[in-house]
Amino acid sequence: MAHRSPISSIDGKLAEEFAVPSHVEEVKEKMSAFAAHHAAAGRRVVLITSGGTKVPLESRTVRFLDNFSSGRRGASSAEYFLDSGYAVIFLHRHRSLYPYTRTFSTINVLDALQFRCGEDASDTSGEVVVNQQVLPNITKVLKRYQEVRDSRLLLPIEFSTLSEYLHLLKAAAQALSTIGSKAMFYLAAAVSDFYIPASEMPEHKIQSSNGPLQLSLNMVPKILSPLVKDWAPQAFVISFKLETDANILLDKARRALDTYRHQVVVANVLDSRRGYVVVVTPLTQAELILTEEDVKNEVEIEERIVSNLTSAHNKFITQQAG
Amino acid sequence: MAHRSPISSIDGKLAEEFAVPSHVEEVKEKMSAFAAHHAAAGRRVVLITSGGTKVPLESRTVRFLDNFSSGRRGASSAEYFLDSGYAVIFLHRHRSLYPYTRTFSTINVLDALQFRCGEDASDTSGEVVVNQQVLPNITKVLKRYQEVRDSRLLLPIEFSTLSEYLHLLKAAAQALSTIGSKAMFYLAAAVSDFYIPASEMPEHKIQSSNGPLQLSLNMVPKILSPLVKDWAPQAFVISFKLETDANILLDKARRALDTYRHQVVVANVLDSRRGYVVVVTPLTQAELILTEEDVKNEVEIEERIVSNLTSAHNKFITQQAG
Repeated sequence: MAHRSPISSIDGKLAEEFAVPSHVEEVKEKMSAFAAHHAAAGRRVVLITSGGTKVPLESRTVRFLDNFSSGRRGASSAEYFLDSGYAVIFLHRHRSLYPYTRTFSTINVLDALQFRCGEDASDTSGEVVVNQQVLPNITKVLKRYQEVRDSRLLLPIEFSTLSEYLHLLKAAAQALSTIGSKAMFYLAAAVSDFYIPASEMPEHKIQSSNGPLQLSLNMVPKILSPLVKDWAPQAFVISFKLETDANILLDKARRALDTYRHQVVVANVLDSRRGYVVVVTPLTQAELILTEEDVKNEVEIEERIVSNLTSAHNKFITQQAG
Repeated sequence: MAHRSPISSIDGKLAEEFAVPSHVEEVKEKMSAFAAHHAAAGRRVVLITSGGTKVPLESRTVRFLDNFSSGRRGASSAEYFLDSGYAVIFLHRHRSLYPYTRTFSTINVLDALQFRCGEDASDTSGEVVVNQQVLPNITKVLKRYQEVRDSRLLLPIEFSTLSEYLHLLKAAAQALSTIGSKAMFYLAAAVSDFYIPASEMPEHKIQSSNGPLQLSLNMVPKILSPLVKDWAPQAFVISFKLETDANILLDKARRALDTYRHQVVVANVLDSRRGYVVVVTPLTQAELILTEEDVKNEVEIEERIVSNLTSAHNKFITQQAG
């Protein structure tokens, strides 16, 4: 019998138990071209994952498991990476927060639009303008959005299910492996730890008339392992650890670094995640904290995280070259 | 020992096992005032529920169960009810589709905005206008949105969790009971059939290091029962039945009418729900179908559903009065 390494068994599991999205090869080519183009122009490329994954309970899905995540951290980080000169592949959950657009995610856009002043209100041919009292930052945000769009520095890719996420992340890792240490992986998505294998999934909607529901979920293969060892071994890799219990957080972060041998874990607690994180590396540990002053000035913690990580990536590239 | 009827036991369960949202009394008063005001002005009032419910697996929630639902049916139905002269309470899942705004839910709004033509592109003080080639219907949609807003015919209420949904629906039913048969309940939300009682829920994030996950879910109490019998006994009540298996659909719809004694079940199959529904009442059964011609003309099935139901509501009011 052939020996199966942990890596190849994860590869096997991926192929067997998680439906392959039909467009994965097409997306992979797009990502390869994007990475090659920007690396040739001297840029680094970061792959950001963002938002939660959907785990269907039925193959014709009515019900699913999900992870709490608006995608705020990924979307705002993308902006700061772009500001730092990175090209960004934004692998995000469908309808999660999006760079720039996120700044008005809490308002109804129709409340920010109005017919051009001075015109007859009954004239439906009129121009529709943004009310800048409702959206005071719109010119700044729109200008930056258009610059990024025109420079093609942002490549958005969507996923919804866990299966899509896993296959697209693998494709991204393989696409970025060609640019070596210039690639960064910023794995901020909230990925399910559990799933129901396709073979054990009922086709139709689970009937409530059958009584209480017993669900038995398998553990999702730890994709970080083949990503670091096999798919993109030269890249700079950051994973995130979110806990609700602060007491176990740093221990779990250190254990993740030991297990997967990647470069950084950004550790955070659910309740304080917008003002406090710990950037953990094999030899260091840095607390990033927003002061009250920062909060008043609308500083975002992602600006600090990205600043910390782009410096570390710098050093990493130099070391790899040396 | 006191006898507990099925209704009072559902009330008891609601109070014991589903956290009461802190603002429920405030919302109830708002809904009461809204209903009284519009009924006095001779209008009927429909309560629309829309979107899926979130069922937390942990009390500090990282993971949750969800139901497939964008909220499209509820949001578009709200528009047709408003067009038919109804006042609408829109009880919807946070971030699900919203009336009028839904029409551009698939585009990034920043792609539809531009700096005013002819102006210097570097002038950030400029006006921002809607590009009507990207949003060709914006003047029509905005005008209608503003009319509805200014006339206060739409009262939006949000929920996220199943607990919030259940308590807010009960509050709505009690608020609308004062206007008798003039109230319609259009229960289009995709409500979970299963939940984890607060007493059995772990506080912290479930650890994947503990191995595969066994979940045991209780059945959600059938709130339609006390709603019809007790909370709003004179109202016109429509429930929805979504299945993936067409073979069991009509049987399940008839059984629901037998069990809950309400007026209408709108039955639909997941794959065909945008072009085909069956409106089932105790004595009748009407198929509503969009033709290819309809689809080309962008007719929506909700227009047909609402037209069918407002007529039926008419007859119902007359019968109740007679």
